[in-house]
Parts: sequence; structure tokens; C-alpha cells
Amino acid sequence: MSIGRKSWAIAEGYLPPGTENLGHAFRSHEAACLLNPNDQPAHVKITIFFADRDPAGPYSITVPARRTSHMRFDDLKDPEPIPRATDYSSVIESDVPIVVQHTRLDSRRAELALLSTIAFPGPE
Amino acid sequence: MSIGRKSWAIAEGYLPPGTENLGHAFRSHEAACLLNPNDQPAHVKITIFFADRDPAGPYSITVPARRTSHMRFDDLKDPEPIPRATDYSSVIESDVPIVVQHTRLDSRRAELALLSTIAFPGPE
Amino acid sequence: MSIGRKSWAIAEGYLPPGTENLGHAFRSHEAACLLNPNDQPAHVKITIFFADRDPAGPYSITVPARRTSHMRFDDLKDPEPIPRATDYSSVIESDVPIVVQHTRLDSRRAELALLSTIAFPGPE
Amino acid sequence: MSIGRKSWAIAEGYLPPGTENLGHAFRSHEAACLLNPNDQPAHVKITIFFADRDPAGPYSITVPARRTSHMRFDDLKDPEPIPRATDYSSVIESDVPIVVQHTRLDSRRAELALLSTIAFPGPE
Repeated sequence: MSIGRKSWAIAEGYLPPGTENLGHAFRSHEAACLLNPNDQPAHVKITIFFADRDPAGPYSITVPARRTSHMRFDDLKDPEPIPRATDYSSVIESDVPIVVQHTRLDSRRAELALLSTIAFPGPE
Repeated sequence: MSIGRKSWAIAEGYLPPGTENLGHAFRSHEAACLLNPNDQPAHVKITIFFADRDPAGPYSITVPARRTSHMRFDDLKDPEPIPRATDYSSVIESDVPIVVQHTRLDSRRAELALLSTIAFPGPE
Repeated sequence: MSIGRKSWAIAEGYLPPGTENLGHAFRSHEAACLLNPNDQPAHVKITIFFADRDPAGPYSITVPARRTSHMRFDDLKDPEPIPRATDYSSVIESDVPIVVQHTRLDSRRAELALLSTIAFPGPE
Repeated sequence: MSIGRKSWAIAEGYLPPGTENLGHAFRSHEAACLLNPNDQPAHVKITIFFADRDPAGPYSITVPARRTSHMRFDDLKDPEPIPRATDYSSVIESDVPIVVQHTRLDSRRAELALLSTIAFPGPE
């Protein structure tokens, strides 16, 4: 299937602090859902931008052919973890067209809050 | 009215578990809202992508001329239901231009959480 | 300022029932925020599509030059109100380029749930 | 990295009233997250449109090279603050391509509600 772009940007980024003891599913987190509809693997590089320091990364992920990967930003460790309670943005680049959607779950209060948006696609 | 595209992708997909006893309206669910503004019916095929197995589908839906269909992913049964608590993505293809919007209602806690985004449109 | 499109679609539409006594601000509702950045007024026509009946409308709104209008779907009365607890979609057409964003506030439970997305733009 | 546009619009805008005593992080607010992936600074001008008065601004912000700025609308003071409980829209213009995402946190009730969407991009 030929749908997707090779570059994407997510301007919003924030890992809410203080929910580390809730377990992986309910801990406040942000995710970039990466769909690779192609018949070959997608080699993906992620760069993280901050307000007051140089960018971090690139972080490398491979999404196999015809698979999806729901990548959580708080799981990124190499070359360095993303600090909590810090504004960031991300640029996602792939060697084949993919589709990227951004989601945040905020569990700082007793109830959940959710947001999601398709990321901004780069040129075709 | 000539608005829409013939292919769409939703990278985010997740049916939260544990709310099956809340009834159809308040059970946690995801929906793809499909608008067919054309004067002929839209024959729609949906393919579901997973993290660790081959894609499922296609699921077939017909949206009549000048009608909308709010399709819930937890209502898809043929060729197979989508498992809960599993990450997925979807690609939606139609023989006439349609408009697709993605929505999730999460009722795992006492209060509701909502997300929505226009899906990613394929080429014109 | 030259930003915007002359046609837009919102595939998702649903006015949650049962909160009519909460007052206008907290009653569950959906809105289409219409920005007219032009130096002339925007004459806007809205068509509402349903799952099982012919479309309603057009509803007519004028957004003055260099003004915004946060139009609530539950305020539309002419030619007919939109029923609650009913799936719908909308197509919004203007004689000058505008920008349209979709928002829903759900107050069926004690806490608020929000969703928002830029609508799908038609051709340039 | 060459991703982004020089103009963006956010049609939805509303600063919920009544949470001023919750502190800066949990006070109800809207933000425009501005990513500048370029090697030179982005000089950004923001114009605010209202329902019933002339636009306010421009507000000026500089986003340094390869940095992100999560700009809160309730922090804008010059030439005038944006009133609470008032509908508005915004147009964001930059001299180099940037990426803009819109987020609102609503803390009027005990729990949080969130919304987010990539803003509407102007022409390439």
C-alpha cells in the first residue's frame, strides 16, 4: 500500500512527572504510533528538540514490513533518556513512507486525560 | 460535493480492556467516522496492522450515497474480531473519495477521556 | 492574510444526550470554529449528513471580515435542529478561504472530556 | 532539516476562566508549540482574531535555531493580554519554516481535560 511520508514532525512533547509508580500502562506518557504499510522494513531515526539545549538523538527504530510500532517516548534510552517535566518536540525520518500519529495519556489526576493528532507530514 | 480522498491511514489503535460490562455506548472503543458526500455508494475496505503478526482483513463496509457511518472497531467481526489491549493501525481504502476521522472513548476510569483526529489522507 | 480553504469536512459528529440542564457553557456540545482572516465577509453554508436519512441544510452563517465565529452545532435551528444522540458529519463551504477546527466538550460524567482537530480541508 | 511551513492557523481558542489560583502548570491554558528545526532563528509573529473586535497583535517571539518553544497564550502580554472566557483564533507567521501544534489543558473540574491538534498549515 502506498500511503505515508518519509518525514514527520510533532511540535508538542511533554512527559508529565510524578506518576512513575502507576505501572507502564497507566504511567503518564507520550507515544508516536508508527505504521509501516510497505513490504520492506522502515529504518526510522528520531531527533528530539528542546527549549534550551542542543537536540538529542538520533534514536533508531526499525518497524518491520507491514507492521505497526507504538513507540513510547519514555522508553527511549539510547543515546539518552528524555527528561520528565521538560518541553520537547520531535522529528521522525524514515527511509520508506510511514504514517505517524501522536498520543499522550496524562494520569496525574485520578482520571485519565488523552490527546492525539496525526503528526505533521513533510513533503511527498 | 467533491471533498475527500480514496485512501486514509490511522496509525494509532488500541481497544482498552476491562469495560465490556458498561454497555455499547460507554464501553471503551475506537471509531472511524466515514463520510461519503458523493451521489454513489462508497465500497470501503479496512486493513488492520499489528506489531507482531500479519495484517487482518480486509473488512468490507458500504457507506450509502450522501450518508455517514460511524464504524466502531470493536464491532468488526468478519474475518476476525480485533483483540482488546493490543496495539494496531488501520488503512482505509474506498472506491470513491470519502473523509475519515478517528475517535477513541476511554472509560477505564469513572470519567470519560476522549481523543479525535482527522486521519492521514493518501494522495489526491 | 492568505491562509485557508473554501471547503472543509468534519466526519465525526455527535451531540451527547442528557446534559441539557447544565447551562450553555457546560452542556455537552460540538463546535466548529471558523476563522475568516480575509478583508471581506465569509458567507458559509453547512450541510449535515446522517447515517439513515437525507442531509439537512444548508445552514447559513456569515463570519465578518477578520473575525472568528465559534459556531455550536446545538445552536443551529434553521432549517431544523440537529437531534441529540445521533451520529452526523458536516461539510462546510465558504465563498472565501477560511480555517475550520472541530471541538467537542462531553460533560455526561462529572468531569469534562475534550477533543479537537483541524477539519479536513478541500482542494486549494 | 527541511520540514515546516511559514504560516499556520489555529481556529479554536479559549482560555477557561476561574482557575487562576491553581499555579502556572495546572491553570487552564492553551499553548502553541513552535518547533524550529532550522539552523537559523525563527522570527514569529502572532495575530489574535476575535468574534466582535479588531484583531490584536502582532505578538513577537523568536525561537532559536534547532529549538522548540511551548508558547502559552495566557503568557502573552505585549501589546495586550488575551482575555479569559473569550473565543479567539490565531494566525502564526514565521520568516523560516516551522511546525505548530495546538494544545489546551482544561482544569475547571477536579480532573484534567486535554486536547491537541497540529495547526492548519499555509501554502508551501
